[in-house]
Amino acid sequence: MTTGATTGDGLDREALDHLETARVRVEPALRAALGRLPGRVRPVALYHYGWSDAEGRECDTGRGKALRPALTLLSAAAAGGDGAGRDERVLAAAVAVDLVHNFSLVHDDVMDGDLTRRHRPTVWSVFGVGPAVLAGDALLTLALQTLAPAPAAAAAVADAVQELILGQIQDLALERRDSATLTECLAMAAAKTGALLGCSCALGALAAGAPDGRVRLLGRVGRDLGLAFQLTDDVLGIWGDPAVTGKPAGADLRARKKSLPVVAALASGTAAGRELARVYRSRQELGPDEVARAAALVREAGGRDWALERAGDLLGDIEKTLDTGDLDESGVPGLRSLARLCVDRRF
Amino acid sequence: MTTGATTGDGLDREALDHLETARVRVEPALRAALGRLPGRVRPVALYHYGWSDAEGRECDTGRGKALRPALTLLSAAAAGGDGAGRDERVLAAAVAVDLVHNFSLVHDDVMDGDLTRRHRPTVWSVFGVGPAVLAGDALLTLALQTLAPAPAAAAAVADAVQELILGQIQDLALERRDSATLTECLAMAAAKTGALLGCSCALGALAAGAPDGRVRLLGRVGRDLGLAFQLTDDVLGIWGDPAVTGKPAGADLRARKKSLPVVAALASGTAAGRELARVYRSRQELGPDEVARAAALVREAGGRDWALERAGDLLGDIEKTLDTGDLDESGVPGLRSLARLCVDRRF
Repeated sequence: MTTGATTGDGLDREALDHLETARVRVEPALRAALGRLPGRVRPVALYHYGWSDAEGRECDTGRGKALRPALTLLSAAAAGGDGAGRDERVLAAAVAVDLVHNFSLVHDDVMDGDLTRRHRPTVWSVFGVGPAVLAGDALLTLALQTLAPAPAAAAAVADAVQELILGQIQDLALERRDSATLTECLAMAAAKTGALLGCSCALGALAAGAPDGRVRLLGRVGRDLGLAFQLTDDVLGIWGDPAVTGKPAGADLRARKKSLPVVAALASGTAAGRELARVYRSRQELGPDEVARAAALVREAGGRDWALERAGDLLGDIEKTLDTGDLDESGVPGLRSLARLCVDRRF
Repeated sequence: MTTGATTGDGLDREALDHLETARVRVEPALRAALGRLPGRVRPVALYHYGWSDAEGRECDTGRGKALRPALTLLSAAAAGGDGAGRDERVLAAAVAVDLVHNFSLVHDDVMDGDLTRRHRPTVWSVFGVGPAVLAGDALLTLALQTLAPAPAAAAAVADAVQELILGQIQDLALERRDSATLTECLAMAAAKTGALLGCSCALGALAAGAPDGRVRLLGRVGRDLGLAFQLTDDVLGIWGDPAVTGKPAGADLRARKKSLPVVAALASGTAAGRELARVYRSRQELGPDEVARAAALVREAGGRDWALERAGDLLGDIEKTLDTGDLDESGVPGLRSLARLCVDRRF
């Protein structure tokens, strides 16, 4: 599945450089935006961003991947605009999508009761459920405030937020049910992850003043990338290295999450799939041995291969769209390498 | 404290008519807005609004007071615009403030673990914490989507939301501490309730195309009204009739809430205030007798009178501002009667 120039450990250095560059370019504007949050909310948000500890002391830990801002900057460049973070409108768009992503993480951790995020205790587990809900609300509001001078961009982000919320509520509903079809799960992943990644790309193009066609095309690239990202994320949720992902090993299986490889395995009609269904139906807690056994069943039933192949297909679609899309060359290689990273990553 | 023509039961019929008129005028636009929510989120929001039951069947129960939309319509009229709900911009503003209010109620009930709202089980207690958090997120986003074509109004609502969030987080922090000053509690109430009521009025004026001076003046009226509303709310939280308020009797005292009359009593330097402080410091659960005793102590220490007087003073300020404010007569009597209702109400 690996394409293009990657390093020995499967990571594309060029893509990591793009992420780091975007992080550095967007950080001052992002910090300035967080600085506008009201007094008592700010320390909670800064803690989540890894820029202060639980006591409010400055630090710099547990930073995110900055994937969404990077997509916005590179899409702005690919649409013929400025991807270097000098254009205020592009920068505001990059800040807004990052804030939306982090709003959703803070609320997700409350809803899922997750204790760890980016190798650190989650916001709700440090500050309590109330402050976590409110800090999430404040980050969402701040995202839309950031785009107040650009009504079309604000409307696009708000649409993406509604779709993201839809994806989350579908996810919760699927977790409660005994069965879920692969079609339902793919639709859920498209809404949960695809919408905001699509918006991250579309917004870059929009802020660069690109015509509708380019905005739509880059939006489609982002959506495809979002689904590929989620497929890879679900694979890492089962087989990822906890030291690299920052999440406990096999956590998704222990929580009996209906992630995409699992649902593919359950729908495979194989003996391993039926055995996995029995494990998922049983009420008892899964120990490390049972988790390892469930992971083996997902693999045996073809769930892992299906997810990796599907992610690879999406990567192919993305590369084709980028090749034929009449885009500015300054942003295309970066988008291509980020797409590869999303599929090949280990973190 | 009662001013003007009120009925025998202390309620101003004229004000109730204004609320009902606003409700009827805004409801179609509000229903249309909720209809734009994504599939699985919509039934949760409709349940909160009392427009469907837990199974998604249509109904019409537990409606809110529509105070905020009424303030928007009347302020639009007082600023020389249309208060009859025919002007799309005014209507969008009224819908937005109502959505913000209801977003905050849905999230509040999650944070406080409250089981009952408007005589019905709260959203989280019916659908779970996850769907409740997400439905609140969706209502907040929808509020800002509603105002996307009006950037100044969207910015004003977002500012009010941030202030409201600040008020909530201050409230949570005060509840955790052993002591709180009256100044802190008044600032918290101003942010928690004053900001959105101020915004409801300012937005009506803004949507009516009023000059800055009128927008600010009506915003101030709304802020004062918000604080008066909160003072009255806190009095009703102790002495209100559960059959009328829809909240259990003495619930605020049982939860040892540091509401305004309580904090005034604690700060009174009286024997009753010191006795109340002992009750608040004790760890054991308060039965009906202890709750009644605590209520008597708040009254004895002067907390009730202080709150009612302060609300009366604010009402005086509001009436003076409305009298001298160079406003259009078509909206002023309505605003005046709503202000009286907020202070004299039993519900």
